[in-house]
Amino acid sequence: MNAQTTLFLSRDDAELRQKIGEVAPQIEIVSRAQLKDHPERIEHIEIAYGGLGRDQIANATALKWFQNGGAGVNGLLSPELAARDVTITSVSGIHARCIAEHLFGMLLSLTRELHSAREAQNRREWKPLGANTLSLYGKTLGVLGVGAIGAQIARVGRAFEMKPIGLRRGRAGHPEIETMFSPENRLEFFAQAQIVMNTLPLTDATRGFMGEAEFEALPDGAIVLNAGRGATIDTTALLRGLQSGKLRAALLDVTDPEPLPAAHPLWEMPNVFITAHYAGAHPEYNAEADAIFLDNLRLYLAGEPLHHVVDKTAGY
Amino acid sequence: MNAQTTLFLSRDDAELRQKIGEVAPQIEIVSRAQLKDHPERIEHIEIAYGGLGRDQIANATALKWFQNGGAGVNGLLSPELAARDVTITSVSGIHARCIAEHLFGMLLSLTRELHSAREAQNRREWKPLGANTLSLYGKTLGVLGVGAIGAQIARVGRAFEMKPIGLRRGRAGHPEIETMFSPENRLEFFAQAQIVMNTLPLTDATRGFMGEAEFEALPDGAIVLNAGRGATIDTTALLRGLQSGKLRAALLDVTDPEPLPAAHPLWEMPNVFITAHYAGAHPEYNAEADAIFLDNLRLYLAGEPLHHVVDKTAGY
Repeated sequence: MNAQTTLFLSRDDAELRQKIGEVAPQIEIVSRAQLKDHPERIEHIEIAYGGLGRDQIANATALKWFQNGGAGVNGLLSPELAARDVTITSVSGIHARCIAEHLFGMLLSLTRELHSAREAQNRREWKPLGANTLSLYGKTLGVLGVGAIGAQIARVGRAFEMKPIGLRRGRAGHPEIETMFSPENRLEFFAQAQIVMNTLPLTDATRGFMGEAEFEALPDGAIVLNAGRGATIDTTALLRGLQSGKLRAALLDVTDPEPLPAAHPLWEMPNVFITAHYAGAHPEYNAEADAIFLDNLRLYLAGEPLHHVVDKTAGY
Repeated sequence: MNAQTTLFLSRDDAELRQKIGEVAPQIEIVSRAQLKDHPERIEHIEIAYGGLGRDQIANATALKWFQNGGAGVNGLLSPELAARDVTITSVSGIHARCIAEHLFGMLLSLTRELHSAREAQNRREWKPLGANTLSLYGKTLGVLGVGAIGAQIARVGRAFEMKPIGLRRGRAGHPEIETMFSPENRLEFFAQAQIVMNTLPLTDATRGFMGEAEFEALPDGAIVLNAGRGATIDTTALLRGLQSGKLRAALLDVTDPEPLPAAHPLWEMPNVFITAHYAGAHPEYNAEADAIFLDNLRLYLAGEPLHHVVDKTAGY
């Protein structure tokens, strides 16, 4: 281990510092506050755990490894960075359980009429509902993007006795998925998907992935959920699908644009449910992200390959 | 087959009548309207599919088999009926998937802050939440009552990577349940259950099953859900658990009393979510119940044992 290794720490947390000390006793830590006071120290940073923007990374000429604290790196990746010898790692895996919980929560809120139930409760009104419920049982679940998150979604879907089909680059099969499709035969995928759960990252290949033709291909009454990136769905095509009655509902944790302006028509469309980009948020998040970083730090110092390395060309 | 067999049909549905005709071409059907016009025909009814109350059953002296259309028979069972040679069958199995969807919908509405998200949406406000979310992952799920419904609950819990423990009469193990408890060691069960999903039927043995001692035994911050029968929980003890802060939340599809009067304190307690006894309602309900009845009708006419027979002593 090189005693001069400098680590930038976005979140300055005593417990995290202590754990880093156990793994790398001689590492030099630069906090966000220190970097603000001494911006020239950016040039010495070899490892960064979160918190650097594109411009800072451009100035971090000694940077070898950037551990991102979130799942998506689309805000970070520049052609310049992709060309540099910097390894980028993510914590995408820790979002899987949380996002699956969030998406099924949004879905069941709709299919079990829970918003109406809440409104009845606010009126202190005992109003048995059920006429507009929908069973998940037997429905075909279209898992759009099959990474760690998509796999967990499929697993939960199977427990609810749904039929998960998937779409991923390369079309490699997955034990939780009954039939796998690739971007090339996406219309066949959408034609079967009664409930779509989209967790695509945003890349050149996924921007506007669900457009006019894809919505048209969906079965009538389809439900579309998005917890990937807003811009993977063409908002105009989505609005048209909602207005025409083609879609039963859209349940969106991410939108395009984001934040969604107050005047945007999506806010008040019937059967649209919006949560403000927090599907991946959970109280244990930092502890789980730290565990991935610390594990990678051990590997880095030992010169071994890191986990959760981002493919800078693919963009995730 | 006896050409004189008379069947009372609570729901007069052309499709159901046609299917009955295929199974039993010569059966005589008495509809609800016909029975109203000719109440004396009650004495000829040998089979009833739903819709008879206690008084009518007492007068149905020729009754041999009562197929209930719901899961619970607590409103129906009298000591007189229990003593008579009348077979009672339920459709309890068809509630399993639906009730599991409802309970996890209620739970995730809470743990993912979806009510707050809906309110923010109503204000057209992009407000990322997440500070009060709770992961299901890793939590111990107390499945109170392990029949078809409890088993499906446990299965979904496992997909969310929860740890299902169960409580059932007789303590027989179940593949979806890690540890099984019996009513005798219920306090050990409650001591571990961070999230309780109660689907107990109402019997003499389950009335007030969750009382003062059981709430006291729960871990601090426990969440209690009830989709069984309201009176299996002592409402006073529940209110105390909510007021003291012992409970994080109560999510209730059934209450005691029911319907819940407008003045009842449960309506406006923080972290109480009430749905008005419709966890088992789903659009495909009648079709699934009819399939069970028709299957049983075939068996009955062939003199074979029926499916889903209610234990009149146990009460479910």
